[in-house]
Amino acid sequence: MSAPAACSPEFINLAHRMADAGGEIARKYFRAGVSVDIKDDASPVTVADREIEAVLRDLIEAAYPAHGIFGEEQDTVRLDSEHIWVLDPIDGTRSFIAGVPLFGILICLLTNGRPVLGVLDQPILRERWIGAVGHGTKLNGAPVQVRSCAGLDKAMMFTTSPDMFRDETDVQYGRLRESVQLVRHGADCYAAGLLASGHADLMVEGSMQPYDYLPLVPVIENAGGIATDWSGAPLSLESDGLMVAAGDAAVHAAALARLAGS
Amino acid sequence: MSAPAACSPEFINLAHRMADAGGEIARKYFRAGVSVDIKDDASPVTVADREIEAVLRDLIEAAYPAHGIFGEEQDTVRLDSEHIWVLDPIDGTRSFIAGVPLFGILICLLTNGRPVLGVLDQPILRERWIGAVGHGTKLNGAPVQVRSCAGLDKAMMFTTSPDMFRDETDVQYGRLRESVQLVRHGADCYAAGLLASGHADLMVEGSMQPYDYLPLVPVIENAGGIATDWSGAPLSLESDGLMVAAGDAAVHAAALARLAGS
Repeated sequence: MSAPAACSPEFINLAHRMADAGGEIARKYFRAGVSVDIKDDASPVTVADREIEAVLRDLIEAAYPAHGIFGEEQDTVRLDSEHIWVLDPIDGTRSFIAGVPLFGILICLLTNGRPVLGVLDQPILRERWIGAVGHGTKLNGAPVQVRSCAGLDKAMMFTTSPDMFRDETDVQYGRLRESVQLVRHGADCYAAGLLASGHADLMVEGSMQPYDYLPLVPVIENAGGIATDWSGAPLSLESDGLMVAAGDAAVHAAALARLAGS
Repeated sequence: MSAPAACSPEFINLAHRMADAGGEIARKYFRAGVSVDIKDDASPVTVADREIEAVLRDLIEAAYPAHGIFGEEQDTVRLDSEHIWVLDPIDGTRSFIAGVPLFGILICLLTNGRPVLGVLDQPILRERWIGAVGHGTKLNGAPVQVRSCAGLDKAMMFTTSPDMFRDETDVQYGRLRESVQLVRHGADCYAAGLLASGHADLMVEGSMQPYDYLPLVPVIENAGGIATDWSGAPLSLESDGLMVAAGDAAVHAAALARLAGS
């Protein structure tokens, strides 16, 4: 595959406007006692998730009515488009519900199936990571970079919850967990920002949907990191929901090897 | 036991000065690439933990040289005193190291063995919960209150990591986890603040030291909640490191029953 062309600044501008609009809604409902519905897949959802996705979609439709949209809360449209926006209005809904300011508004642009733009916005802390091909990754406008790591046994790893893994993936995850220096749970998407900014080394997740993992890929990759599935293949709409990301290429390779059992 | 007398405002003032001084140090080292030592018990420690505890101790020694001190990083002194300060300079060191603003500076005053004053300070978010007998619990000066909860099956529960539990406690925790609506990991002490402020219902922890759990007791109790060990007994310097706290008394009782197997 050839390297994708630099992401259009117009798309980056739209992504900022989307995150601005979504953040206003999130701040309105945070710690305000919103009621929680439990979806068929046992995941929670609130009025904030639904309102934010609706606003993000309106902004896309107004600017680029031919673009496709793949979001968590509403039906997919125009998946045959060259450009597809992938939206998670609130990643980390458990955090949002419980008043923990680590949830994120996630926005991704796929061009010809490849993630070329990713936004991770934390509206309470007012931290916005945006990574785009040709533009690097920035936190609130300042370039960020992953850090090197001397080895898997020195790695600080994030995993939202070990409950995400079952049977074979639980065994694989267990092997990896025993190989790293420290593990921290419960950060959801926020871990990708910390990885991109060089505060952590490894992020391992499972049971993800495309709107959970695709927006994180440009944030990590354009900061110099690597994000793939557990076989080392690039992440796409068709991936199996398992992600491993690292700042250091050697640590990424070592993590893949531990997951594979070697 | 008789109810303890109201906590002296002088002690509350000292606790504020301690949290102010500790927070300055925490902000200086947060996301600044501090090196991490791994202690004999496999827990991490940094220069920030050590500097903060030293400053907190200096303030106590200057104000009340007869008071006892029980802290994480230095030796215990004057444990036979009427008043003993219990200190965790950074609870959630994993969060601190990885750039997650959910760690806390924890300060407790025991009077005749009972926790009468507790501080949970998050210096990055500049959120300070302080609970004291006779003074309620306040977040940045505003009174907070726990919320009611319709039942265990409606409860939002915090547990820092399921890895804290082994063998029998793992079985007990597993029973409780299956009985609640949602579980969130990785919040450490911050969960107690969210519980006191009525954003969560239940907090279950294990493998704790007195400096981890004692400061949380006045924060929770003076907001109307309950914090005990897993048998329902009050928490003290001699507790076994297992804590269950709830905003709603019926949910606390139901959680104790699930832990006990009924």
